[in-house]
Amino acid sequence: MTGDAVDLGFARVDIAREARQGLPEVVYGTGKTAAEIVSIVRTLLRHNEGPVLVTRVGDETAAAVQAEVPDGRFDSPARLLVWRPAAPVGFGVVVAAAGTADQPVAREAAAIATAVGLTVTVVTDVGVAGLHRLLAEQDRLRAADTVIVVAGMEGALASAVGGLVACPVVAVPTSTGYGAGLEGVTALLAMHASCAAGITVVNIDSGFGAAMAAFRLSRVVAGRA
Amino acid sequence: MTGDAVDLGFARVDIAREARQGLPEVVYGTGKTAAEIVSIVRTLLRHNEGPVLVTRVGDETAAAVQAEVPDGRFDSPARLLVWRPAAPVGFGVVVAAAGTADQPVAREAAAIATAVGLTVTVVTDVGVAGLHRLLAEQDRLRAADTVIVVAGMEGALASAVGGLVACPVVAVPTSTGYGAGLEGVTALLAMHASCAAGITVVNIDSGFGAAMAAFRLSRVVAGRA
Amino acid sequence: MTGDAVDLGFARVDIAREARQGLPEVVYGTGKTAAEIVSIVRTLLRHNEGPVLVTRVGDETAAAVQAEVPDGRFDSPARLLVWRPAAPVGFGVVVAAAGTADQPVAREAAAIATAVGLTVTVVTDVGVAGLHRLLAEQDRLRAADTVIVVAGMEGALASAVGGLVACPVVAVPTSTGYGAGLEGVTALLAMHASCAAGITVVNIDSGFGAAMAAFRLSRVVAGRA
Amino acid sequence: MTGDAVDLGFARVDIAREARQGLPEVVYGTGKTAAEIVSIVRTLLRHNEGPVLVTRVGDETAAAVQAEVPDGRFDSPARLLVWRPAAPVGFGVVVAAAGTADQPVAREAAAIATAVGLTVTVVTDVGVAGLHRLLAEQDRLRAADTVIVVAGMEGALASAVGGLVACPVVAVPTSTGYGAGLEGVTALLAMHASCAAGITVVNIDSGFGAAMAAFRLSRVVAGRA
Amino acid sequence: MTGDAVDLGFARVDIAREARQGLPEVVYGTGKTAAEIVSIVRTLLRHNEGPVLVTRVGDETAAAVQAEVPDGRFDSPARLLVWRPAAPVGFGVVVAAAGTADQPVAREAAAIATAVGLTVTVVTDVGVAGLHRLLAEQDRLRAADTVIVVAGMEGALASAVGGLVACPVVAVPTSTGYGAGLEGVTALLAMHASCAAGITVVNIDSGFGAAMAAFRLSRVVAGRA
Amino acid sequence: MTGDAVDLGFARVDIAREARQGLPEVVYGTGKTAAEIVSIVRTLLRHNEGPVLVTRVGDETAAAVQAEVPDGRFDSPARLLVWRPAAPVGFGVVVAAAGTADQPVAREAAAIATAVGLTVTVVTDVGVAGLHRLLAEQDRLRAADTVIVVAGMEGALASAVGGLVACPVVAVPTSTGYGAGLEGVTALLAMHASCAAGITVVNIDSGFGAAMAAFRLSRVVAGRA
Amino acid sequence: MTGDAVDLGFARVDIAREARQGLPEVVYGTGKTAAEIVSIVRTLLRHNEGPVLVTRVGDETAAAVQAEVPDGRFDSPARLLVWRPAAPVGFGVVVAAAGTADQPVAREAAAIATAVGLTVTVVTDVGVAGLHRLLAEQDRLRAADTVIVVAGMEGALASAVGGLVACPVVAVPTSTGYGAGLEGVTALLAMHASCAAGITVVNIDSGFGAAMAAFRLSRVVAGRA
Amino acid sequence: MTGDAVDLGFARVDIAREARQGLPEVVYGTGKTAAEIVSIVRTLLRHNEGPVLVTRVGDETAAAVQAEVPDGRFDSPARLLVWRPAAPVGFGVVVAAAGTADQPVAREAAAIATAVGLTVTVVTDVGVAGLHRLLAEQDRLRAADTVIVVAGMEGALASAVGGLVACPVVAVPTSTGYGAGLEGVTALLAMHASCAAGITVVNIDSGFGAAMAAFRLSRVVAGRA
Repeated sequence: MTGDAVDLGFARVDIAREARQGLPEVVYGTGKTAAEIVSIVRTLLRHNEGPVLVTRVGDETAAAVQAEVPDGRFDSPARLLVWRPAAPVGFGVVVAAAGTADQPVAREAAAIATAVGLTVTVVTDVGVAGLHRLLAEQDRLRAADTVIVVAGMEGALASAVGGLVACPVVAVPTSTGYGAGLEGVTALLAMHASCAAGITVVNIDSGFGAAMAAFRLSRVVAGRA
Repeated sequence: MTGDAVDLGFARVDIAREARQGLPEVVYGTGKTAAEIVSIVRTLLRHNEGPVLVTRVGDETAAAVQAEVPDGRFDSPARLLVWRPAAPVGFGVVVAAAGTADQPVAREAAAIATAVGLTVTVVTDVGVAGLHRLLAEQDRLRAADTVIVVAGMEGALASAVGGLVACPVVAVPTSTGYGAGLEGVTALLAMHASCAAGITVVNIDSGFGAAMAAFRLSRVVAGRA
Repeated sequence: MTGDAVDLGFARVDIAREARQGLPEVVYGTGKTAAEIVSIVRTLLRHNEGPVLVTRVGDETAAAVQAEVPDGRFDSPARLLVWRPAAPVGFGVVVAAAGTADQPVAREAAAIATAVGLTVTVVTDVGVAGLHRLLAEQDRLRAADTVIVVAGMEGALASAVGGLVACPVVAVPTSTGYGAGLEGVTALLAMHASCAAGITVVNIDSGFGAAMAAFRLSRVVAGRA
Repeated sequence: MTGDAVDLGFARVDIAREARQGLPEVVYGTGKTAAEIVSIVRTLLRHNEGPVLVTRVGDETAAAVQAEVPDGRFDSPARLLVWRPAAPVGFGVVVAAAGTADQPVAREAAAIATAVGLTVTVVTDVGVAGLHRLLAEQDRLRAADTVIVVAGMEGALASAVGGLVACPVVAVPTSTGYGAGLEGVTALLAMHASCAAGITVVNIDSGFGAAMAAFRLSRVVAGRA
Repeated sequence: MTGDAVDLGFARVDIAREARQGLPEVVYGTGKTAAEIVSIVRTLLRHNEGPVLVTRVGDETAAAVQAEVPDGRFDSPARLLVWRPAAPVGFGVVVAAAGTADQPVAREAAAIATAVGLTVTVVTDVGVAGLHRLLAEQDRLRAADTVIVVAGMEGALASAVGGLVACPVVAVPTSTGYGAGLEGVTALLAMHASCAAGITVVNIDSGFGAAMAAFRLSRVVAGRA
Repeated sequence: MTGDAVDLGFARVDIAREARQGLPEVVYGTGKTAAEIVSIVRTLLRHNEGPVLVTRVGDETAAAVQAEVPDGRFDSPARLLVWRPAAPVGFGVVVAAAGTADQPVAREAAAIATAVGLTVTVVTDVGVAGLHRLLAEQDRLRAADTVIVVAGMEGALASAVGGLVACPVVAVPTSTGYGAGLEGVTALLAMHASCAAGITVVNIDSGFGAAMAAFRLSRVVAGRA
Repeated sequence: MTGDAVDLGFARVDIAREARQGLPEVVYGTGKTAAEIVSIVRTLLRHNEGPVLVTRVGDETAAAVQAEVPDGRFDSPARLLVWRPAAPVGFGVVVAAAGTADQPVAREAAAIATAVGLTVTVVTDVGVAGLHRLLAEQDRLRAADTVIVVAGMEGALASAVGGLVACPVVAVPTSTGYGAGLEGVTALLAMHASCAAGITVVNIDSGFGAAMAAFRLSRVVAGRA
Repeated sequence: MTGDAVDLGFARVDIAREARQGLPEVVYGTGKTAAEIVSIVRTLLRHNEGPVLVTRVGDETAAAVQAEVPDGRFDSPARLLVWRPAAPVGFGVVVAAAGTADQPVAREAAAIATAVGLTVTVVTDVGVAGLHRLLAEQDRLRAADTVIVVAGMEGALASAVGGLVACPVVAVPTSTGYGAGLEGVTALLAMHASCAAGITVVNIDSGFGAAMAAFRLSRVVAGRA
């Protein structure tokens, strides 16, 4: 250990971010072996006190990690491993997914938001090509502290929701669809060019980014309580 | 004159398209002088029988042309010159424009469609960030034989209209907006990636293309009458 | 069931679109398991009365679904499953494919158009590098109510057909070819930049989109009969 | 007036958004004449009760509008006209601009945020190539309820700030710089690819978008008070 | 003078290329003053024996240069200045231009090719949206030693001509059109993705490049005579 | 057989191109089964008299085809099957490949050019980062009737060769390299932006396109003999 | 003055960078008024001891600044203002420019490098389409401590120089040329994809960036002396 | 052997570059078989005297080569084979990697730099989202003769390091991350648009390019000793 970091050889783990910055520890699982994840998680559990999350974990790797580090919960569709989930802080998030294909990203957003203490409702199949279904969810959307919109293809749901609610809207473009969707780039650009005022955007397929954006806001609210 | 074409030196005018293909003659005005337009229009009026249109004409050029070729009507916001407009054929088109900035393109689409015999209604400011205004126009949209959707920025209106009506929807992306709108390319791609089934797209800012697409549709109906 | 939708857990199926909008139900098969498709198809067959289609289905999945839901027909080259195909409505579509490599998309367009009641003729190998073959098909093209042009590489066939016929032309860019074709993006852009007036374009490889665009028009004609 | 909108001929003004959605009325000034802006502002002042803003207004247009509609204040560097600015709601925003060239966008963000009731501090010249200057502002940044980061070129300031504070960070890419900056597209993409968790992004040069995003955040806090 | 070059201060003129490589001297006029062009042309006339050309010259600059250097001929539409044009070498080139807007580039190609000794025929308005006009020119196209195809928008003419003739086809994409034409990039890509075998492509708007490509071939033929 | 084409079910084979246009028959092998290739080749051999080529054929498919259609020769590195190769016509082509990774494309170009009657010399490892090696080949390059330059990465070899020789230069960008090479798009653009006058470019990795371009050139010379 | 910065209202000037980091102060002139430049330069001259440079300054602005701040020298072609130029440190830089159009960028690089103490030789018109001219400069290139290559269009000169010398090569892509050059993006990508080992690249048209990169190199050598 | 090259059939090996240019021989392993690598390495070992390196070699290929050519050392994470590594020349390089995912590229840079005689220190996990960790390494960074920055995603580390040190900074964008990172293109562009003066950039993932750039500088220093 040198200062704030524990050197595991393959990575230097920052064990002071939780205290220093106040954000929970989230490990990006892609490309890491089960053994590496085990090492990192153990280090974080030992040196921190809050939730420890690992994203983008496959079923096999998750099982191997859970066998080594007790008390971890795995959400398979969200590909998320969680230890010491946070208690609810009373901040309501609605995750609105445009289509069936957007669900994996919506699940990731919902699972991470829940693990860090937010209260999540998921609303699906509310793409703008079926406005009556979206409008049927207006009350739920308006009751939210933040809406996370998950949409691929043309990403139009972000604009529609942005025009319905006054709370923060975080848009997640997804890489669903084919051809002119350009693996999510079209949705990302379209969400930025949106005619709805004040919606913000995170990276393609980043349910994680949206959940953390919501968490940042929840902290401001909590700080006021 | 060699065969089907009249050679004006600066251009060879196809005087047989009307008879051969059945589409009205439309001259692209950009980059042509008033004198050139006068020559072309006179040639077409003499050798054809249907409407003659010139698109993308500025006010000064239009006045100069009108002074030389009688009976032309100029629609300044649409930048369109028309001789011998067609009689109405009983085919209803609704041009739906998302925002104020999309109006020049909507005007071009409406004016050309009218000149070739279609019956046009224009609906404006129905962008998806204000769904209640779009929904208030549902009946008019559903009564159309074809809807032309004109929208820039994220182009989401095409998807929303595509989900409301069962008639043909022709989407025109516009180059309005800034930044991530990429001069209309984002809207073009987004309209193609739309989640609404069976909507079609024409070139950026091409009110002309949309009007001609609607005209092609009207001919099928007319051929059945 | 909540209102218009049946919640199957993994998806909320809209069972009222057929009645509400008048478009047939088409399920996008990519990424769905046989079991999921079975559930959705059963729901749609029970709550609707028109055709039920599933696109982009592989041979194995199709067989598994057919074993569970009787009376489905599978068109393997088109990768399409169909229940309750529509009776012919007397609307003629010619699907013109530029080259051999464009055939899978042409097959999808033709099979879907047929399943929703259109009368389809397929014309192949009429790319613009062999104009005599295209011109040999002029009469068939001119007799159509709509021509669907399927072409990859440079997509030039759309312009050529657009100059031959006066009926609607729906162009489908395909991802065939290599290098500068950019997976269909070049053909999509080229079709939009076409010098032929009033042709429209759908998404890359979307035989489905083209068929539905033709169906939308057929409804207008039918509404006039 | 038809329903919620007042039709001014050149535009249909939505006079019910304030009541319906709770967002202040902001008119996009680009491309509008002084006379058009006067009409719209008068309509909004009459039918609403909150602030009325017009963005991207040049000096001459602003003077002409102010001469017709009393009590408007003009912030020239921010290109913003304001009537009935909101009283402070007690929500602190720090606008951090990377370089001198980013100041016009930072000014727009700050002026709009102030006009809608937020308390704004501007911090300039804190680009990552001079980390000591950024770190010297740590306390101010950490005291904010939200940080708006304005940065062009490579946009790296967003990541650095995102790692320093736990509150929401809204990043605005700017079109400053030349060459590989691609008019702001590089900064937009870079901010999305950021290694800092939970930062969000708005459109290129959109100080307006960032201010409105902050306003949406402030409403959640206000709703809890 | 140092070795093969004459140093004029603002440029070092290669006076040995003609002898060394056998290509005529062509000066790119864009960005050069009349005085600079005068210097370069004089140097080349003195040290070489073949044709001297200056491309992309405006009318005023041309007049100023002609006043200083006798015997130069200026082709205004082609923007070309020529001294000592080559005698015809008996090599036939057809320049086929798709539309009226492509004529400036076609003129440049034709004028340069003529100046270096090729025998040029220009064929215009033969875009693929009017196949009958193209086919009417078949005999002329087939009699050529090389066909230069000049086309913007979707660039489809290159494929069509490539399928009609067996001689070399050099395609020049032009920056005509708008929107999806992407300033000629779409035509360039489309020409490369062409389904016609063995056509080659030069830079956007480069009538010069196409003429020089034809000249290179004429030399091979001449070398065989 | 309908007119000029033989319909094989999966494809309509043009059996009159050889007579009509004078180009040899080349079948694109990608995506075709051995059985399909056998059918097409047999049809072409029966109805034409010249060479029959199949490109992009793997070893297994080639063996299967050769077992069914006698007298075919297979060039494995070039992935080319040939029947009835043309007798040499006395037209010299040098294929110059920049690096080892460009060899498969160079092999394809060389094998096809040879099969259609050209006399081919291959020069390898002459990239511009080793100018002495390129210059050592100057005499061979200058003796050619046409040089085919095959180069990936930055594609600079085309410019260098274009400055050394006066004969036609056909450049083939390749998809070798990684990162900024963008799968050959960078080389394609760079070759077009070349400072060498009159070089032409074919599609990425298209050794076939370059060989056919050279064949077209050879026909002009042959026509003069 | 707050800490290391002097706040001039429109900018906060870092007066400690020279001491802290050891790089000379260079002000980016674009978008700054003469008055602003005067303020900044005076501040830097007062608080630092080394050279003060202002880049991208037009003739009029330069004269106005020189009238206010004595002893400044202006290099008009390089658009550079300099006070207190550094004494030569004995580090030799060759700036090699491919063509005439690349000279403004080459001039900027040379002037800045000279002002910070490097010894500069400029070599022009050595593009790869004329290899003999490049090779004639081999000795000068090989004698350099660093070569700055300035080249637009296809940028091939960087690879050629990279293969001739063993010293550091810094490549500057320029926005010269048209069409496929894409305003310098093609050259930038091509230089990165170069086959020459260990060459590095700076931003498009950034003679400044290249000069500063050379200065950084010179410091390492100086540190060893 | 012809002149400077040994022809191995599949490649012509340049055996004189070491003597001619002074750069060590580095073979690009991708796409080469073990047998081919053995041939090339033997040729280079026989005809040269310095280090021989093979990059991008997998474990199996490496073992096969080592079995045939004695005394080779393999660095598996760096995928590098080395024979006759150079003795240290006393030139210090710090390789700074932003995140764990950037380590393979950092390893390649470090291993190659070491093999050619540089003294390398690797610093990891110093991305700008954790500035305190970067600042903790300031002294090590400032002691370097050259810093190689390896960073993907938004590539901001290059700017931050560029502002901390005065020595040369060579930035390597990596293809880590997803979505808006565009496989490293975003980082490459962002590094070029950097606000830090005089940093240079090499190709995406090219640890090799960065190491060779450092080597070139070390030679200048060595030449002064």
